[in-house]
Amino acid sequence: MASHPSARSHQADASLRERARAVIPNGMYGHQNAVNLPDNFPQFFARGEGSHLWDVDGNEYVDLLCAYGPILLGYQHPKVDEAAAAAQDAGDCLNGPSAKMVELAELLVDITPWADWAWLAKNGTDATVFATSVARTATGRREILRARSAYHGASPNWIGADMATPADGVSEYEFNDLTSVQTALDQASDDVAAIIVSAFKHDVGIDQELPTPEFARGLRDLCDANGIVLILDDVRGGFRIDMAGSWAPLGVDPDLSAYCKAIGNGHPISALMGRESLSDAVAKTFGTGSYWFTSAPMAAAQATLETMLETDGIAHLEQIGSALRSGWQQAADAHGVGIRQTGPVTIPLMTFDGDDFTARQAPRAYRFASELAERGVYLHPVHNGFLSTAISEADIAHTLEASDEAFEVVAAEFNG
Amino acid sequence: MASHPSARSHQADASLRERARAVIPNGMYGHQNAVNLPDNFPQFFARGEGSHLWDVDGNEYVDLLCAYGPILLGYQHPKVDEAAAAAQDAGDCLNGPSAKMVELAELLVDITPWADWAWLAKNGTDATVFATSVARTATGRREILRARSAYHGASPNWIGADMATPADGVSEYEFNDLTSVQTALDQASDDVAAIIVSAFKHDVGIDQELPTPEFARGLRDLCDANGIVLILDDVRGGFRIDMAGSWAPLGVDPDLSAYCKAIGNGHPISALMGRESLSDAVAKTFGTGSYWFTSAPMAAAQATLETMLETDGIAHLEQIGSALRSGWQQAADAHGVGIRQTGPVTIPLMTFDGDDFTARQAPRAYRFASELAERGVYLHPVHNGFLSTAISEADIAHTLEASDEAFEVVAAEFNG
Repeated sequence: MASHPSARSHQADASLRERARAVIPNGMYGHQNAVNLPDNFPQFFARGEGSHLWDVDGNEYVDLLCAYGPILLGYQHPKVDEAAAAAQDAGDCLNGPSAKMVELAELLVDITPWADWAWLAKNGTDATVFATSVARTATGRREILRARSAYHGASPNWIGADMATPADGVSEYEFNDLTSVQTALDQASDDVAAIIVSAFKHDVGIDQELPTPEFARGLRDLCDANGIVLILDDVRGGFRIDMAGSWAPLGVDPDLSAYCKAIGNGHPISALMGRESLSDAVAKTFGTGSYWFTSAPMAAAQATLETMLETDGIAHLEQIGSALRSGWQQAADAHGVGIRQTGPVTIPLMTFDGDDFTARQAPRAYRFASELAERGVYLHPVHNGFLSTAISEADIAHTLEASDEAFEVVAAEFNG
Repeated sequence: MASHPSARSHQADASLRERARAVIPNGMYGHQNAVNLPDNFPQFFARGEGSHLWDVDGNEYVDLLCAYGPILLGYQHPKVDEAAAAAQDAGDCLNGPSAKMVELAELLVDITPWADWAWLAKNGTDATVFATSVARTATGRREILRARSAYHGASPNWIGADMATPADGVSEYEFNDLTSVQTALDQASDDVAAIIVSAFKHDVGIDQELPTPEFARGLRDLCDANGIVLILDDVRGGFRIDMAGSWAPLGVDPDLSAYCKAIGNGHPISALMGRESLSDAVAKTFGTGSYWFTSAPMAAAQATLETMLETDGIAHLEQIGSALRSGWQQAADAHGVGIRQTGPVTIPLMTFDGDDFTARQAPRAYRFASELAERGVYLHPVHNGFLSTAISEADIAHTLEASDEAFEVVAAEFNG
C-alpha cells in the first residue's frame, strides 16, 4: 500500500475538549458531538472556505459533510455572505421583518408550483413541529403517522422515551410499504391528522432508500381519500434533489413541506411551505421565536436559491456525486471490498458488506473514514454525506486517491 | 395641546403588506405580527442603529421595544457586530463548533456562581423545552408546574388547545402564591419533575409583578424538599436585571436557567445553564439543531456580555429606566391620567386606569402608543418594553416630550 501519512496533530482539539468538559455537559451534545466519531476526528473547527475545512490544529480537509447539510454552495460563498452582511449592516434583528421576508417568500412560492405560501423559522424542528400543529388544527384530529424510526427533529413532539420510540400522538408505518400505512390508518380509527414522510429514507447507518413512485402516489391518494394532510420533510433532501422540492421529479405534491439545512448556505433559517387551504390553520396556530424574523438569513437564503437557479446547481451536484459514486465503486471493486451506495448521489452514503450498524458494528466504515481523515478528507463514517457545488475536480481526485489507500487498509484488515 | 405632527407616510409598508398577503399565511405570523398594533405602526423595517429604528417608509423612531428584547446594547453595536463578522468570515457553520463555544460557556459559567455548565441553542423555546426534558429524565417524573398562563415558549410542549390552556403534562400555580404551589404539588401526587418560574410575572397587557423574596425562597425550599428541579425562565429578564441571573439579587439559585433574547444583542443564540447534578441527564436527552453550533452568534454573545460587564450596563439601563419611569409618572399626573408602571424599570410596562386588557379593552394604551409612534417613539401598547444601553438623554427627552403630548391626547379623549 501507499505510504501512510504521518499522524496529524490534534493537540489544540484535545485541549479545547478538556476545557469544554469543565463548562459544557459532557463536553458536547447534539449531532455535531464527535464522541462517536473515529478517534482522529476533530471536535472543534477554525475555518471553512469553498469545499475545504480546517480544524483548530490547522489540519485541512476536503469536506463531504457540509456542516451536516447546510453548506450547499461551499463555505464563505461570496454572493451569499455579501447579501447577509448587507442585511446585517442595515440592522438584522428589528421590531419586525424587513422587505427580505417578502422577497424570499415570493421566490420560494415562485419555484414551488404547488405551494401558495412560505412560513419562515429557525430550525428544521421548528418547521416539522409547526407542520403537525397546523395539521392538527386544520383537521381537528390528533395522530401523526411517520415512517418507523424516521428522524423529523430533536423534540419531545417527535422523540419518546428513547430515539427509536415515537412520542405520544405519533404512530409508525414502514417506508415504501403502503400496506403498512393502511394498517396504521386503520389502527388510528379516523384520528389521523397528518402523514409525514421524508423525501427519502435516511436513517443513520443503514442503507438509504429512495421512495418508489407507487409509494409516493399511494400516500397522496390515501391522504386525499381520508382528508389527511401530507407533510413532506425535505429538511435533509431540500435543494439537493430538485429546486421545486424533492418529490417534484415523482410528480407528487405534498400539502406542507419543511425545509432547513441547505436553504441558507449555513445562515440560520428554515421554512414551511403550504397550500392556501391550510393558511387559516396557520393563523390559528401560534408559533414564533425571538430571531425568526431577522433579515440577514433571509437575504442569505434568497442569494443561495438564486445562485442555485442561475448556475443549475442541482446538475452540478449530480455530476460531482456521480463521479464520486463511480470512483468509489471502482476503487472498492479493485480492492475486493464489498460496498453499497444508496440514496441520491448528491447526498451520498456508503455502507460496507460485513458491517452491521443496527448492531453498532461498523468497523469497516469507521476504519475507512478514519483513514480518509488522516489523508485530509472529511467523510462521516455512518451518517450520509452532503455535497456542495464548491467541490472541484481536484477535490474529487484527491478524495478518490485517498479512498484508494483507505480501501486498501480496509481490505488488509478485514478481508480473509 | 401642542400642534399635532402631520401624519407619517406608510405607503411602502402598505405595499409590502399587500405583497406579503399573497405569499405568507395572512401576511404575517408570530410575535412581530403588527395586525394587533395601532394602525399607524409599521410591519416592515429597513434599518436600526443605536437606539433608533427606521421603517420601510423612512420614518424614524426612538425604540423602546428593542426587537422584543434581543437588542441590549443598541442596534449595530460595533464591538458585537465586529466579533460576529470576524467569526462569520472564518466560517460560521462548520462540521463542529469553533473555540468560541468553549469561551462563551466559560464566560457564562464564570458570571453565574451557582451554575456548572452552559448548553447553547437557538431559541428561548429550545432552552425551556429542553429544560423540561432534562428534568423529566433526571427525576423519572412527568409533570411540570408553571404559573397560570405564563408564557415559556411557542411550542406544543407549553401551549395546549389555546394560548391560555397548558399542554398535557403541565399544571399551574399562581405566581407569588406558595399555597397554590403546594396545592398543585399535592394534586400531582409525587409526579412533579420541575417547577418553572419566570424571573418576574410578565403576562401581556396586565401589570407586571416582581417575585417576593418569600415566594422565591419558598419555591426553592419546596423543590429541595421534594426532589424537584427548579427552572428559572430568564428569557425575558436575563441580562437586564442582574448579570448573574435575575434571581441573584434575591439570593435564590435555580437548578436550570434559560436565557435567550438579550444574550447576543440580536444574534441568534439561546442558552440553558445548570448544575453538575443534571449534567448526566443532559447527556441522556437528545437535543440539537442544524445551526446550534455556529460560531458567529457565540462570538456576538461573548462580546455582548463582556461589554455589559465592562461598562456596568445594568446600572446604565437602570438609570435610563428610572428616568423614563419618573418622567412618565410626572407627565401622567400633570394631565390627570391614571397609570401604573410595574416590573423592572429596565423592562418597562405602563398600563392605564380604565383599560382592561383581559377584556381586550385597552383604548388608552393604544391611543398613547399611537400618538407616540406619530411622534417618532416606538412603544408597544400592551407588551412590556425593553431598554438598551444605547438610549441617550436626548432620546429620553424626546420620548418624554412626545409622551407629554400623548398624555394630553389621552386625557382629552378619555377623561370625563
